[in-house]
Amino acid sequence: MNIDKLLKPGAIAIVGASGSPTRVGGRLYNNLIRHGYQGEIYPVNPKHDSIAGRKCYPRVGDIPHPVDAVLIAVPAGAVFSIMEECGKKEIKNAVIYSSGYSETGAEGRARQQQLAALAKRFGIAVCGPNCVGIINFRDHIAMSFSQFLNAPELIPGHIAFISQSGALGGSLLNRAQDKKIGFSYFVSGGNEAVLEASDFMEYFVSDPSTRVIMVLLEGIRSAEKFLQAADRALEMKKPIIVMKVGKTEVGRKAAGSHTGSLTGADAVYDGVFRQHGIVRVDDLDDLYLTAAAFSKSRLPAGNRVGILTSTGGGGVILADRLVENGMSVPDPLSETSSALSEVVPSFTAVNNPFDLTAQLINDPQLFHKCLEVFADDNNFDAIIAAVSMVAGELSVKRASYIIEGMQSIDKPLFTWWAAGSLSAPGMDLMERSQVPYFSSAAQCVNALKALAEYAVFSSRPRAGVSTPAGRIPPDSHRVDTLLQLPAAIMTEDQGKALLAAYSIPVTREAVGADLQKVRGIAQRIGFPVALKILSPQVTHKTDVGGLRLDLADQDELEAAYNEISTAVQQNAPEADIQGFLVQEMAPAGREVIIGINHDPQFGPVIMFGLGGIFVEILKDVSIRRVPIQEQDAWEMIREIKGYRLLKGVRGEKGYDLKAVVDVLIAVSQMAVDLKDRVREIDINPLIVYPDGGGVKAVDCLIIKKGAP
Amino acid sequence: MNIDKLLKPGAIAIVGASGSPTRVGGRLYNNLIRHGYQGEIYPVNPKHDSIAGRKCYPRVGDIPHPVDAVLIAVPAGAVFSIMEECGKKEIKNAVIYSSGYSETGAEGRARQQQLAALAKRFGIAVCGPNCVGIINFRDHIAMSFSQFLNAPELIPGHIAFISQSGALGGSLLNRAQDKKIGFSYFVSGGNEAVLEASDFMEYFVSDPSTRVIMVLLEGIRSAEKFLQAADRALEMKKPIIVMKVGKTEVGRKAAGSHTGSLTGADAVYDGVFRQHGIVRVDDLDDLYLTAAAFSKSRLPAGNRVGILTSTGGGGVILADRLVENGMSVPDPLSETSSALSEVVPSFTAVNNPFDLTAQLINDPQLFHKCLEVFADDNNFDAIIAAVSMVAGELSVKRASYIIEGMQSIDKPLFTWWAAGSLSAPGMDLMERSQVPYFSSAAQCVNALKALAEYAVFSSRPRAGVSTPAGRIPPDSHRVDTLLQLPAAIMTEDQGKALLAAYSIPVTREAVGADLQKVRGIAQRIGFPVALKILSPQVTHKTDVGGLRLDLADQDELEAAYNEISTAVQQNAPEADIQGFLVQEMAPAGREVIIGINHDPQFGPVIMFGLGGIFVEILKDVSIRRVPIQEQDAWEMIREIKGYRLLKGVRGEKGYDLKAVVDVLIAVSQMAVDLKDRVREIDINPLIVYPDGGGVKAVDCLIIKKGAP
Repeated sequence: MNIDKLLKPGAIAIVGASGSPTRVGGRLYNNLIRHGYQGEIYPVNPKHDSIAGRKCYPRVGDIPHPVDAVLIAVPAGAVFSIMEECGKKEIKNAVIYSSGYSETGAEGRARQQQLAALAKRFGIAVCGPNCVGIINFRDHIAMSFSQFLNAPELIPGHIAFISQSGALGGSLLNRAQDKKIGFSYFVSGGNEAVLEASDFMEYFVSDPSTRVIMVLLEGIRSAEKFLQAADRALEMKKPIIVMKVGKTEVGRKAAGSHTGSLTGADAVYDGVFRQHGIVRVDDLDDLYLTAAAFSKSRLPAGNRVGILTSTGGGGVILADRLVENGMSVPDPLSETSSALSEVVPSFTAVNNPFDLTAQLINDPQLFHKCLEVFADDNNFDAIIAAVSMVAGELSVKRASYIIEGMQSIDKPLFTWWAAGSLSAPGMDLMERSQVPYFSSAAQCVNALKALAEYAVFSSRPRAGVSTPAGRIPPDSHRVDTLLQLPAAIMTEDQGKALLAAYSIPVTREAVGADLQKVRGIAQRIGFPVALKILSPQVTHKTDVGGLRLDLADQDELEAAYNEISTAVQQNAPEADIQGFLVQEMAPAGREVIIGINHDPQFGPVIMFGLGGIFVEILKDVSIRRVPIQEQDAWEMIREIKGYRLLKGVRGEKGYDLKAVVDVLIAVSQMAVDLKDRVREIDINPLIVYPDGGGVKAVDCLIIKKGAP
Repeated sequence: MNIDKLLKPGAIAIVGASGSPTRVGGRLYNNLIRHGYQGEIYPVNPKHDSIAGRKCYPRVGDIPHPVDAVLIAVPAGAVFSIMEECGKKEIKNAVIYSSGYSETGAEGRARQQQLAALAKRFGIAVCGPNCVGIINFRDHIAMSFSQFLNAPELIPGHIAFISQSGALGGSLLNRAQDKKIGFSYFVSGGNEAVLEASDFMEYFVSDPSTRVIMVLLEGIRSAEKFLQAADRALEMKKPIIVMKVGKTEVGRKAAGSHTGSLTGADAVYDGVFRQHGIVRVDDLDDLYLTAAAFSKSRLPAGNRVGILTSTGGGGVILADRLVENGMSVPDPLSETSSALSEVVPSFTAVNNPFDLTAQLINDPQLFHKCLEVFADDNNFDAIIAAVSMVAGELSVKRASYIIEGMQSIDKPLFTWWAAGSLSAPGMDLMERSQVPYFSSAAQCVNALKALAEYAVFSSRPRAGVSTPAGRIPPDSHRVDTLLQLPAAIMTEDQGKALLAAYSIPVTREAVGADLQKVRGIAQRIGFPVALKILSPQVTHKTDVGGLRLDLADQDELEAAYNEISTAVQQNAPEADIQGFLVQEMAPAGREVIIGINHDPQFGPVIMFGLGGIFVEILKDVSIRRVPIQEQDAWEMIREIKGYRLLKGVRGEKGYDLKAVVDVLIAVSQMAVDLKDRVREIDINPLIVYPDGGGVKAVDCLIIKKGAP
């Protein structure tokens, strides 16, 4: 759908136009005029002949000129006929502000479906309904009734802002423009009956005036579309900054969303955003500040930060924040000390943070001189300059030194300024400069970290949707045979046979129907063995006493056989016993869990975590949408908190992570290949052995599609 | 030391006074005058006869009137003679701005010691040196050269602010006063040669004009003094809000501090602050915003929050934040829905967050009406009102509704306002009101959470320094005998004997010198047993192969004996073998660690954590200063992330936490009783059994004072 004319209309009709500033139609008209719209405006309202001296048409069809976009601000009931008129007049773009659609219950939802159908019939691109509209900052086209438009002027820039909350969208625009942060476009699409956030993302990815896209997100309609736009943005190196609201269960409920998969929907967003190079922020102010930093600054080559400060305490605060956020604050090179001692003979050694407080009293220009030398240090990928209480003219000087300094520095230079209104003259200069500037140390560090992470995202092999090549193809015949078995929940042995068909190492094992068979199998496998009940009704064997481990000989095996039989009969009398699984006792190792779940938003997702408490208590898991690439698998392993346990601690040898990567990729491939037949896979545990020792799946649960 | 006249001097001498605004002495003079000091000012400077028309004295001794406080702004070299003159003239208070003391290396440190000695000799209370000074906002006495004093006026209030960073102190004052947040006093004590932050804290605790104390802290000089002031503040219900900088290793290095104990100094601060009811914040802006919230609001009775919002997205953001911070966002009572449907017939059900967006378009006054009814809901302990983009006059109305609403609400009402300068008129009203008001949702929630936590702190039994009563007294004779043994590191059996003397349950065990003795002991204790090497040189038995567990019979015991002997001879040939410890195999249970470490700042601290990876990888520990009370012990157990594992998960029975509390208190008592003799205690693991089953110390390491 071509929405170019929706965002840059040369002729606009306003249906429901009014001279009254208390009506939406009046505000739309006023805002367009006041902010300098240069195209044609055709007010439409049967009640008026003219509005503010401009001829007013009774109906859209009466306008004797072509119209690029129609703004509709009439009660919901009147919208359909207007849409039909637009259709007849071949108007291809509409913004519908009217409420009374899906936000109001069943009747409204039906009305919205009808609206969408009409739009489709006439091929009209619709923004809304129930929206605050669109602002084109580049061409001064304010098609919105947001009170933000009470602002005296619109500051154009290179950030496109898509907000699924109209009220917060206007609020953030107001705040960002207070700080002189410019925008290319603002879109708040309301109920998204036709056009959704992803459509606008796609447009802005190709829009030459947009360098950064920021999104205030409540929910995604089509994950596929959203991620395609994200992948394309990554290719074009246009960062997408997202604040996703509705993170907690309570928040999601409040957002009216109905997600909440096993792994927790928010963790899924985290994983998928990471996978597709989408920058996630956790606070409204971080959203526009980070976007502004991206639009101004080059990317750092790494995460090593040099701090130049005129406040000792401020330097410490920055250092704390950086380290807490996984950045590093290394010592400067000794060359830097020598070079600086030439600038200021009293310097002996230079530290990081480099505190100039004492020296600045005598020579304010020192900041400028030191900045260049300090920033030249090869130990630093980026520089933060910290400024505190300097008032009036002194604040202007300090700002100038930093802004001038930036010209001669070939790495990102950020500034944190701790003071308030007394430093306003200098801060104002900073805001107008190309130096990313922050009033909070936390926001400064958050933004710099986002740039550093994005530098990694955007330089790694593309994490798109293609299936990784070069993998061992599965044994398709065996896969089909196994999946044709009737039960919806596969028994452990069937599940493992399916894993084995995908070349995933599993325990040696076989099923016996009675004690004699069980004895024979154990003899063949070799003691010690484990004995497990097999029944589609028993998914948690431990809970019913259906499992005995580490059986050393035939006597222990027989005892276990009898105990399990009795226990299961007592605890799960309804269970259909399909036999007993005799299994080699896999030697101990590090236990991990690999699983596939179905996320309502993103479809099949793969989960990785350490076994036991790490997943259950600490929710320490990493998640990606399938398919994953090798790079994703490594990132999944490295991003969990417990990674140190896999890497090897206290001189212990590391574990065979290459083998884990292979399993992750194989399971991801299973999920893709079998996406119409398998709903859930849970390998728990997969035992990982020291480096070179491989892995072994010890238990697994596979649930087919359509299972209850 | 009485510092009343230092903070409220009726007559001030300025040594180094000047007419030049670029000199510290000139700025001090100007600031005093400009901000309306009503007392006497005596400029002192041999170079001038008068300053701005006021007579100038060559020396302090020449002033023919009594002087309450002297402000010294001369080079460090000239300070000593001035101090002597002050001594002779019986001036008891001084603020020394001069630099060139401990901040400048060895020579400066010596000069500072000399200064402190002089102050002591003459009984002069000194603020500084190298400080930006003191501001008394109540009486308009600006004894500082901070550029903050370029502000047009000083806004008095009830917050006393102690800042160990002069530059950040001024910056925060500027920001806070921009938001109309008033102060009683500001003190920045620089190098703290004589008066330290705790002295001022103590003063402000008793000062009737101060209701809240906020501290920007880099380090504590005397922990005892600091905590006494904190305890007294808690008694007086005057909250102390602290931002501690230098949290990370890099930050601490930058702060020039030399702490860094085993448990990590920052975790110690966290624990001790909690123990003494000190509110800790993590951001500069949170510091004054939280202080302001305390100074304006009553405390909430709990952590259940009702959200009334004019932005759906904003309500979701607040709900997310609250839940992420351990607060709750419960559903409203059904009565509230009924009551609200009387106010607005179109309401059917009311949710939390309660989103008024749609309704407000038709009736802006609705906010007011709904606020009262909604806030009356007994499911809520506090209310947050969220406001977004309303401009100009509408913003004034919205603010008025909230402020009026507050009058009739008997619980805390906070406001988050998401917009920017277009809402300035309304925001301005908010700032001047008694409603805690925030421009960031995160800051709003942080402050409310701080109030809720403080409500708990301040209502619990006082956590002071008294030893808990009613405990079983230790077996002193046995304790003395054990501690008189020569080795600096106690062997495991000695350590456990010491634990046992404090009634801490330990494993049954005995030491045998040879295989025959070992066999006999095992026979007596009963199999299975563990066998461990005993040597003061072997503190980690596993590392040298000096440990075998779960020995089932005499054969296994003998094999283990031989293996251990060989292994230790190979791996630790220098070890002095004192025998073999034969120990009952304690049944499995949940493993925890209890330890005592010596913190350089706070002395002996007690640490609690879950065994293994929880402590080693996740640093999931709780820490308190000893002695602890029963309440502290419970809080220590409950605050670790792994608490759920102790409470019992997935229907599992909980563990015997009462028994853990007893051990924590006993170990705390050990640390106090033996503080001159024992440096470190490490019980690892203490096995905890299901409720009623008690605990058992399985291994322990006790290091005496003076050990290498």
